[in-house]
Amino acid sequence: MTAPPPSRTLDHPPRDAIRLEGVLHALSDPMRLRIVRRLAAAEDELSCSLFGLPISKSTTTHHFRVLRESGVIQQCYRGTAKMNGLRRDDLDALFPGLLDSLLRAAALQARRLREG
Amino acid sequence: MTAPPPSRTLDHPPRDAIRLEGVLHALSDPMRLRIVRRLAAAEDELSCSLFGLPISKSTTTHHFRVLRESGVIQQCYRGTAKMNGLRRDDLDALFPGLLDSLLRAAALQARRLREG
Repeated sequence: MTAPPPSRTLDHPPRDAIRLEGVLHALSDPMRLRIVRRLAAAEDELSCSLFGLPISKSTTTHHFRVLRESGVIQQCYRGTAKMNGLRRDDLDALFPGLLDSLLRAAALQARRLREG
Repeated sequence: MTAPPPSRTLDHPPRDAIRLEGVLHALSDPMRLRIVRRLAAAEDELSCSLFGLPISKSTTTHHFRVLRESGVIQQCYRGTAKMNGLRRDDLDALFPGLLDSLLRAAALQARRLREG
Protein backbone atom coordinates (compact mmCIF):
# COMPACT_ATOMS: atom_id res chain seq x y z
CA MET A 1 0.00 0.00 0.00
CA THR A 2 1.22 3.49 -0.78
CA ALA A 3 0.29 6.66 1.03
CA PRO A 4 -2.42 8.67 -0.69
CA PRO A 5 -1.10 11.57 -2.79
CA PRO A 6 -1.16 14.94 -1.08
CA SER A 7 -4.45 16.69 -1.57
CA ARG A 8 -4.61 18.65 -4.79
CA THR A 9 -7.62 20.68 -3.85
CA LEU A 10 -7.15 24.10 -2.30
CA ASP A 11 -9.16 25.74 0.46
CA HIS A 12 -11.53 28.50 -0.54
CA PRO A 13 -13.87 30.47 1.72
CA PRO A 14 -17.52 29.88 0.89
CA ARG A 15 -19.32 32.96 -0.39
CA ASP A 16 -20.82 33.91 2.96
CA ALA A 17 -17.43 33.78 4.68
CA ILE A 18 -15.95 36.39 2.34
CA ARG A 19 -15.35 39.69 4.17
CA LEU A 20 -14.98 43.14 2.66
CA GLU A 21 -11.96 43.84 4.89
CA GLY A 22 -10.21 40.71 3.57
CA VAL A 23 -10.97 41.62 -0.05
CA LEU A 24 -9.60 45.13 0.47
CA HIS A 25 -6.50 43.79 2.20
CA ALA A 26 -5.95 41.40 -0.72
CA LEU A 27 -6.19 44.29 -3.18
CA SER A 28 -4.00 46.65 -1.15
CA ASP A 29 -0.81 45.27 -2.70
CA PRO A 30 0.38 46.46 -6.14
CA MET A 31 1.27 42.94 -7.35
CA ARG A 32 -2.05 41.47 -6.24
CA LEU A 33 -3.93 44.38 -7.83
CA ARG A 34 -2.01 43.68 -11.03
CA ILE A 35 -2.97 39.99 -10.93
CA VAL A 36 -6.64 40.85 -10.44
CA ARG A 37 -6.63 43.41 -13.27
CA ARG A 38 -5.07 40.82 -15.58
CA LEU A 39 -7.66 38.18 -14.62
CA ALA A 40 -10.50 40.65 -15.12
CA ALA A 41 -9.18 41.60 -18.55
CA ALA A 42 -8.75 37.95 -19.55
CA GLU A 43 -12.32 37.03 -18.54
CA ASP A 44 -10.99 33.49 -18.24
CA GLU A 45 -8.86 31.32 -16.00
CA LEU A 46 -5.13 31.89 -16.34
CA SER A 47 -2.21 29.77 -15.24
CA CYS A 48 0.06 31.26 -12.53
CA SER A 49 3.01 30.91 -14.89
CA LEU A 50 1.42 33.27 -17.42
CA PHE A 51 1.67 36.38 -15.27
CA GLY A 52 5.43 36.83 -15.45
CA LEU A 53 5.56 39.00 -12.35
CA PRO A 54 8.90 40.66 -11.46
CA ILE A 55 9.06 38.79 -8.13
CA SER A 56 10.24 35.39 -6.93
CA LYS A 57 8.17 32.26 -7.43
CA SER A 58 7.56 31.91 -3.70
CA THR A 59 6.36 35.52 -3.40
CA THR A 60 4.12 34.97 -6.42
CA THR A 61 2.66 31.88 -4.74
CA HIS A 62 2.09 33.90 -1.56
CA HIS A 63 0.19 36.62 -3.43
CA PHE A 64 -2.06 34.10 -5.18
CA ARG A 65 -2.74 32.43 -1.84
CA VAL A 66 -3.76 35.74 -0.21
CA LEU A 67 -6.12 36.37 -3.13
CA ARG A 68 -7.61 32.87 -2.81
CA GLU A 69 -7.98 32.92 0.97
CA SER A 70 -9.74 36.28 0.89
CA GLY A 71 -12.22 34.98 -1.70
CA VAL A 72 -11.07 37.16 -4.59
CA ILE A 73 -9.90 34.30 -6.81
CA GLN A 74 -10.45 30.59 -7.17
CA GLN A 75 -7.53 28.29 -7.86
CA CYS A 76 -7.51 24.73 -9.13
CA TYR A 77 -5.04 22.32 -10.61
CA ARG A 78 -5.31 21.29 -14.25
CA GLY A 79 -2.59 18.68 -14.66
CA THR A 80 0.58 20.43 -13.53
CA ALA A 81 -0.79 23.94 -14.03
CA LYS A 82 -2.42 25.94 -11.25
CA MET A 83 -5.26 27.87 -12.82
CA ASN A 84 -6.70 31.10 -11.43
CA GLY A 85 -10.02 32.79 -11.96
CA LEU A 86 -11.77 35.80 -10.46
CA ARG A 87 -14.73 34.97 -8.20
CA ARG A 88 -16.74 37.65 -9.94
CA ASP A 89 -20.14 36.07 -9.30
CA ASP A 90 -19.50 35.81 -5.57
CA LEU A 91 -18.05 39.31 -5.27
CA ASP A 92 -20.82 40.88 -7.36
CA ALA A 93 -23.46 39.10 -5.28
CA LEU A 94 -21.96 40.24 -1.98
CA PHE A 95 -20.81 43.72 -2.98
CA PRO A 96 -22.69 44.84 -6.11
CA GLY A 97 -20.61 47.16 -8.27
CA LEU A 98 -17.55 47.10 -6.02
CA LEU A 99 -15.24 45.00 -8.17
CA ASP A 100 -15.90 47.09 -11.28
CA SER A 101 -15.43 50.25 -9.28
CA LEU A 102 -12.08 48.98 -7.96
CA LEU A 103 -10.95 47.91 -11.44
CA ARG A 104 -11.85 51.34 -12.85
CA ALA A 105 -9.95 53.04 -10.02
CA ALA A 106 -6.89 50.84 -10.66
CA ALA A 107 -7.00 51.54 -14.40
CA LEU A 108 -7.28 55.29 -13.82
CA GLN A 109 -4.36 55.25 -11.41
CA ALA A 110 -2.20 53.17 -13.77
CA ARG A 111 -2.86 55.65 -16.58
CA ARG A 112 -2.20 58.63 -14.31
CA LEU A 113 1.12 57.22 -13.07
CA ARG A 114 2.23 56.30 -16.60
CA GLU A 115 1.45 59.77 -17.90
CA GLY A 116 2.64 61.49 -14.69
CA MET B 1 12.54 84.18 24.22
CA THR B 2 10.70 80.91 24.51
CA ALA B 3 10.95 77.96 22.16
CA PRO B 4 8.19 77.81 19.59
CA PRO B 5 5.35 75.45 20.52
CA PRO B 6 5.54 72.00 18.95
CA SER B 7 3.91 71.98 15.54
CA ARG B 8 0.18 71.40 15.71
CA THR B 9 -0.26 70.72 12.04
CA LEU B 10 -0.34 67.14 10.81
CA ASP B 11 1.16 65.72 7.62
CA HIS B 12 -1.24 64.85 4.82
CA PRO B 13 -0.37 63.47 1.39
CA PRO B 14 -1.29 65.89 -1.39
CA ARG B 15 -4.01 64.61 -3.71
CA ASP B 16 -1.62 63.33 -6.37
CA ALA B 17 0.34 61.30 -3.82
CA ILE B 18 -2.73 59.32 -2.74
CA ARG B 19 -2.50 55.71 -3.94
CA LEU B 20 -5.32 53.24 -4.38
CA GLU B 21 -3.32 50.52 -2.61
CA GLY B 22 -2.89 52.76 0.43
CA VAL B 23 -6.59 53.65 0.51
CA LEU B 24 -7.54 49.96 0.32
CA HIS B 25 -5.05 49.07 3.04
CA ALA B 26 -6.50 51.82 5.24
CA LEU B 27 -10.01 50.43 4.73
CA SER B 28 -9.01 46.79 5.23
CA ASP B 29 -9.39 47.05 9.01
CA PRO B 30 -12.82 46.76 10.67
CA MET B 31 -12.22 49.69 13.06
CA ARG B 32 -10.97 51.98 10.31
CA LEU B 33 -13.89 51.00 8.08
CA ARG B 34 -16.21 51.85 10.98
CA ILE B 35 -14.57 55.27 11.42
CA VAL B 36 -14.96 56.03 7.72
CA ARG B 37 -18.62 54.94 7.67
CA ARG B 38 -19.31 57.19 10.64
CA LEU B 39 -17.58 60.16 9.00
CA ALA B 40 -19.46 59.57 5.76
CA ALA B 41 -22.79 59.44 7.61
CA ALA B 42 -21.98 62.60 9.59
CA GLU B 43 -21.09 64.59 6.45
CA ASP B 44 -19.10 66.78 8.79
CA GLU B 45 -15.89 66.82 10.79
CA LEU B 46 -15.99 64.81 13.99
CA SER B 47 -13.73 64.85 17.01
CA CYS B 48 -11.74 61.66 17.68
CA SER B 49 -13.30 61.45 21.13
CA LEU B 50 -16.81 61.12 19.63
CA PHE B 51 -16.25 57.70 18.10
CA GLY B 52 -16.17 55.71 21.34
CA LEU B 53 -14.37 52.79 19.75
CA PRO B 54 -13.92 49.63 21.87
CA ILE B 55 -10.14 49.90 21.67
CA SER B 56 -7.40 51.74 23.57
CA LYS B 57 -6.69 55.40 22.98
CA SER B 58 -3.29 54.63 21.45
CA THR B 59 -4.80 52.10 19.03
CA THR B 60 -7.49 54.62 18.13
CA THR B 61 -4.79 57.21 17.43
CA HIS B 62 -2.95 54.69 15.27
CA HIS B 63 -6.05 53.96 13.18
CA PHE B 64 -6.73 57.66 12.60
CA ARG B 65 -3.11 58.14 11.59
CA VAL B 66 -3.26 55.31 9.03
CA LEU B 67 -6.41 56.88 7.57
CA ARG B 68 -4.73 60.30 7.42
CA GLU B 69 -1.44 59.10 5.95
CA SER B 70 -3.23 57.15 3.22
CA GLY B 71 -5.23 60.25 2.24
CA VAL B 72 -8.64 58.96 3.36
CA ILE B 73 -9.19 61.59 6.07
CA GLN B 74 -7.91 65.01 7.02
CA GLN B 75 -7.16 65.84 10.62
CA CYS B 76 -6.69 69.19 12.29
CA TYR B 77 -6.64 70.60 15.77
CA ARG B 78 -9.43 72.86 16.98
CA GLY B 79 -8.31 73.91 20.44
CA THR B 80 -7.73 70.68 22.29
CA ALA B 81 -9.90 68.57 19.97
CA LYS B 82 -8.51 66.67 16.99
CA MET B 83 -11.10 66.91 14.25
CA ASN B 84 -11.48 64.40 11.42
CA GLY B 85 -13.11 64.69 8.03
CA LEU B 86 -13.31 62.46 4.96
CA ARG B 87 -11.27 63.68 1.97
CA ARG B 88 -14.26 63.00 -0.25
CA ASP B 89 -13.39 65.59 -2.91
CA ASP B 90 -9.89 64.19 -3.34
CA LEU B 91 -11.02 60.57 -3.38
CA ASP B 92 -13.91 61.26 -5.77
CA ALA B 93 -11.59 63.16 -8.11
CA LEU B 94 -8.98 60.40 -8.17
CA PHE B 95 -11.30 57.37 -8.09
CA PRO B 96 -14.80 58.40 -9.20
CA GLY B 97 -17.49 56.32 -7.56
CA LEU B 98 -15.11 54.21 -5.49
CA LEU B 99 -15.81 55.66 -2.05
CA ASP B 100 -19.57 55.34 -2.46
CA SER B 101 -19.16 51.83 -3.76
CA LEU B 102 -17.03 50.91 -0.72
CA LEU B 103 -19.51 52.51 1.69
CA ARG B 104 -22.39 50.61 0.08
CA ALA B 105 -20.44 47.35 0.33
CA ALA B 106 -19.66 48.02 3.99
CA ALA B 107 -23.29 48.82 4.77
CA LEU B 108 -24.50 45.67 3.00
CA GLN B 109 -22.00 43.54 4.90
CA ALA B 110 -22.90 45.12 8.25
CA ARG B 111 -26.59 44.37 7.62
CA ARG B 112 -25.83 40.83 6.48
CA LEU B 113 -23.71 40.06 9.55
CA ARG B 114 -26.28 41.57 11.91
CA GLU B 115 -29.07 39.53 10.38
CA GLY B 116 -26.89 36.45 9.85
